[in-house]
Amino acid sequence: MALPHASPGQIVRLDPLGERLTESVSTALFKAAQLEVVRLVLPRGHTMRDHRVQGEITLHCLEGVIDLTVDGRTQPMHAGDLVYLAAGQPHALHAVQDSSLLLTLCLLPGV
Amino acid sequence: MALPHASPGQIVRLDPLGERLTESVSTALFKAAQLEVVRLVLPRGHTMRDHRVQGEITLHCLEGVIDLTVDGRTQPMHAGDLVYLAAGQPHALHAVQDSSLLLTLCLLPGV
Repeated sequence: MALPHASPGQIVRLDPLGERLTESVSTALFKAAQLEVVRLVLPRGHTMRDHRVQGEITLHCLEGVIDLTVDGRTQPMHAGDLVYLAAGQPHALHAVQDSSLLLTLCLLPGV
Repeated sequence: MALPHASPGQIVRLDPLGERLTESVSTALFKAAQLEVVRLVLPRGHTMRDHRVQGEITLHCLEGVIDLTVDGRTQPMHAGDLVYLAAGQPHALHAVQDSSLLLTLCLLPGV
């Protein structure tokens, strides 16, 4: 279900999706001039193969367990874990459990 | 206690501080070219008066309850609540309970 993007100053609740996770999809929470925030939903077994993003990003695990591979090194992310990646840094994600993450992207000027 | 900044790909744990909160201080987790992330620690009763930040920011409540005032409107933020503010948008924070928040700032080019 598509939700309207949040406005500046509008509070968005990020409760764990729990049993609703497998019926949920990744959702852009807002996209402003400099920042975009997406809630990624990765059901168990789902993989995002090695890819890169133009700007710097943060990933913040909200629930579940995600294997994050950066520069050939794989580390598990649990709820409450935060990581940032340099612009263009290749990375891959694999959901070990039903998981959701907050992805914050810095949008480059003019992009 | 000052901690070294995280490197790209290095996972930072953001467990609630709980009883350690009143002995903790706000900490910059990392500062990169485009993004800076700070864990703000606001013991109960602490206020950050009306101020503004040059770039866009997000605030993500990790624990506690914070009254956020934006454009003269006050709303409570609980653990798991996220909000973004436009560049230069005046805002104030008041900790209703011992609280910590994740502050993500987009750094303007050349700043």
